[in-house]
Amino acid sequence: MAGKVFFSVTMSLDGFMAPEAVPVEDVFSPEGHNDPRVQRWMTKWSELQAWAFPQRWFRENLKLGEGGEEGLDNDIARATYERTGASVMGKRMFDLGEQAWPEEAPFHTPVFVVTHQQRDPWERPGGTTFHFVNDGIHSALGQAREVAGDRDVRIAGGSETILEHLNAGLVDEFSIALSPVLFGAGTRLFDGADASRVALEPVRSEPSSRVTHLTYAVHPR
Amino acid sequence: MAGKVFFSVTMSLDGFMAPEAVPVEDVFSPEGHNDPRVQRWMTKWSELQAWAFPQRWFRENLKLGEGGEEGLDNDIARATYERTGASVMGKRMFDLGEQAWPEEAPFHTPVFVVTHQQRDPWERPGGTTFHFVNDGIHSALGQAREVAGDRDVRIAGGSETILEHLNAGLVDEFSIALSPVLFGAGTRLFDGADASRVALEPVRSEPSSRVTHLTYAVHPR
Repeated sequence: MAGKVFFSVTMSLDGFMAPEAVPVEDVFSPEGHNDPRVQRWMTKWSELQAWAFPQRWFRENLKLGEGGEEGLDNDIARATYERTGASVMGKRMFDLGEQAWPEEAPFHTPVFVVTHQQRDPWERPGGTTFHFVNDGIHSALGQAREVAGDRDVRIAGGSETILEHLNAGLVDEFSIALSPVLFGAGTRLFDGADASRVALEPVRSEPSSRVTHLTYAVHPR
Repeated sequence: MAGKVFFSVTMSLDGFMAPEAVPVEDVFSPEGHNDPRVQRWMTKWSELQAWAFPQRWFRENLKLGEGGEEGLDNDIARATYERTGASVMGKRMFDLGEQAWPEEAPFHTPVFVVTHQQRDPWERPGGTTFHFVNDGIHSALGQAREVAGDRDVRIAGGSETILEHLNAGLVDEFSIALSPVLFGAGTRLFDGADASRVALEPVRSEPSSRVTHLTYAVHPR
């Protein structure tokens, strides 16, 4: 049995999944850290993801240290990773992650990066191998499905890659951790969603003390 | 003890509280009903509010007929109205409602309409009286607080009036019925919200089979 194709992101109450973009090189340079735009970007990410950082599983997987909270948030974060047999991601997310992830990248499965860049597969310790796919999302998703077997394929992000899959009718289900913050500006998760073609069916809504975990099935309309 | 100031709206998952605006006169004219823009507007409203229409209390209050569903959605709809001692609304919402509400308007309390139009109070059967306030939101809210006593004041809408109150630090709490639809276009609830000044504290998150009822307290930041 083939797995599902899903995405799972954290969204601000006003619909953003990322703050206003700043250049990747500024985020990771010493000068960038004094740049108010970069500082705002960091602050907003931290606020958006505030539910995830204290979780035991998140800390383990990103090598942030031992200990951490257990409970619904932790269970959901862990379950999301455990169901995932392969991921598809866009180039910008990969570029950010390449600098931010620990050496043992947090996927532990094959990851298919949709990009124009030609590059050999990049194998990381711990089971993550990044494959660079130059012929579009259908090809990347097909390869991801194949290696995932009966586990699910996660469209990891960013928002453009998620929307491309959603609008193409390729997403079966998605989850949103709805975060109690307003962003006011940034990248909207659903900006460009083809509302005339996507119908949603509520599957689960699970409140924790920090966020509400919403899951919807996607149907054509 | 003074009551709270709150708003309570239904929002699409992508953040809209109303479809793209169409002229009020088209909505209520026979020709308008054949206009595809008006038809789309009607369809989108119906989808957004699909959770409310079947509820027993909603049907009673809007004189739509007897019977209807009981349960969490009905309880919340009823409780929202019962806590409300007075409402504040914008002119456009009033203009739409003036044509859409039954003769016995569904508020049963004083309603303060923020408008440039000078008009005598308009008393409806059943206890609703519309007062037309020409000197801004602070004046309207002050008058509403006074008549509400220890009950709460609802900022009824539309989105501009809600945002004016939110950005001015006048809202204590709000509730959103998060509806499983994507709008893609229309009026965003939080468009223009001053994210740098508004901090949210999650109060309750209550899923029904149709929507998730989210409640947040508002704090300055």
